[in-house]
Amino acid sequence: MIDISALFKISYGMYIVTSGNREQNNGFISNSVFQVTASPIQFAVCCNKDNYTSEFISTFKSFSISVLKQDASADIIGLFGYMSGRYKNKLLDCKVEYSETNVPMVLSDSLAILECKLIRTVDVGSHLMFVGEVINSKLLDDTEPLTYAYYRNVKKGKAPKNAPTFVDEKKLNENIRDKTMSDVYKCPVCGYEHNVAEGDPKSGIDPNTPWNDVSEEYTCPLCGAGKEDFYKL
Amino acid sequence: MIDISALFKISYGMYIVTSGNREQNNGFISNSVFQVTASPIQFAVCCNKDNYTSEFISTFKSFSISVLKQDASADIIGLFGYMSGRYKNKLLDCKVEYSETNVPMVLSDSLAILECKLIRTVDVGSHLMFVGEVINSKLLDDTEPLTYAYYRNVKKGKAPKNAPTFVDEKKLNENIRDKTMSDVYKCPVCGYEHNVAEGDPKSGIDPNTPWNDVSEEYTCPLCGAGKEDFYKL
Repeated sequence: MIDISALFKISYGMYIVTSGNREQNNGFISNSVFQVTASPIQFAVCCNKDNYTSEFISTFKSFSISVLKQDASADIIGLFGYMSGRYKNKLLDCKVEYSETNVPMVLSDSLAILECKLIRTVDVGSHLMFVGEVINSKLLDDTEPLTYAYYRNVKKGKAPKNAPTFVDEKKLNENIRDKTMSDVYKCPVCGYEHNVAEGDPKSGIDPNTPWNDVSEEYTCPLCGAGKEDFYKL
Repeated sequence: MIDISALFKISYGMYIVTSGNREQNNGFISNSVFQVTASPIQFAVCCNKDNYTSEFISTFKSFSISVLKQDASADIIGLFGYMSGRYKNKLLDCKVEYSETNVPMVLSDSLAILECKLIRTVDVGSHLMFVGEVINSKLLDDTEPLTYAYYRNVKKGKAPKNAPTFVDEKKLNENIRDKTMSDVYKCPVCGYEHNVAEGDPKSGIDPNTPWNDVSEEYTCPLCGAGKEDFYKL
């Protein structure tokens, strides 16, 4: 029997992983970044095959890892964690540094950066595991890194849909949902709660618009998940 | 340029990874344990090729992960992290549970256990990366897990020699050592400090025995590293 709560006890940091060059690039939030050998210093990063950054790493044969600060803003986590680079240039407004491989290394909200040359790619099913040798690294700020535990417990964040640690809360909550609770619909990807009484005026949804009358095209204002993914609290 | 201090900002947990069956088994302390896919739930573990447990995982095709509690004892970390199972049955005095694959899952000082069936082995140089599917998991105690940051900062622990995150402090300190400091010799593996004035009576070394007179067979009382590895503080 698999008890999902046991998996919550695994510790991770939170990182922005990017790939590409000065012209074309993308990045995403990853919590599965880890050192695999000490000599040479090699790191592995897991990336969903559907993730746009996977294509960049496979093409450009390099990637960078930015270690997020504990006080990293929700904006940068929203930008890199919940939006697709297919529709938005995520690195446009970030402070970025380039080095040997021309991979953009994000400095914004980060306390350390690592530049890696791709050594091998391992297919592990839904994800690709990219193993890279660290060719450059720099400490930017000697403060505490953001950990996934801190993000979950203090910042109340959730794993994005493509993360190896994603938990389908929609399924998880299906049987325990109290149908008599207030008229609130929750995004299972990022945790955003849509309150019918308040509506979502920024997305053109007036207060008190019944959920059934909200367009099927409606997407979560925080992470872009579709209306069909929301569940009633 | 590689700045090692940047690598210290990567977050890890601390685990006992075991393999084998009821008769033959071994385990070691690992900090490189991480989820690689969510569906199915797969975990990867890096293990030095010289590590005795590597042989067991390759032979028995299964392994277990015990998530250490934040207050795990120095004894269990010393036992699984700094001693070789070639000379000692590490699991003899531990509380252990068996399940489907008969791999021993250590319950002592642990708050969660995962049982994994080996799916693939990836050679990453000095280490093997074992990817396994979680077939059973259990939460034992809903408290804080031990993180590597906590182990380093609060418990003042070091990475064992075979860990992917091992830093050769002997080399690191070679140039900055102050030769005028007290007569103390430090073990680069576990951080134990041998003070000449105090000696190491338990190992038969009287107080004030000059370091040169200490037998070349002397090994660190904590981790078993050889005398030749010690360096002068």
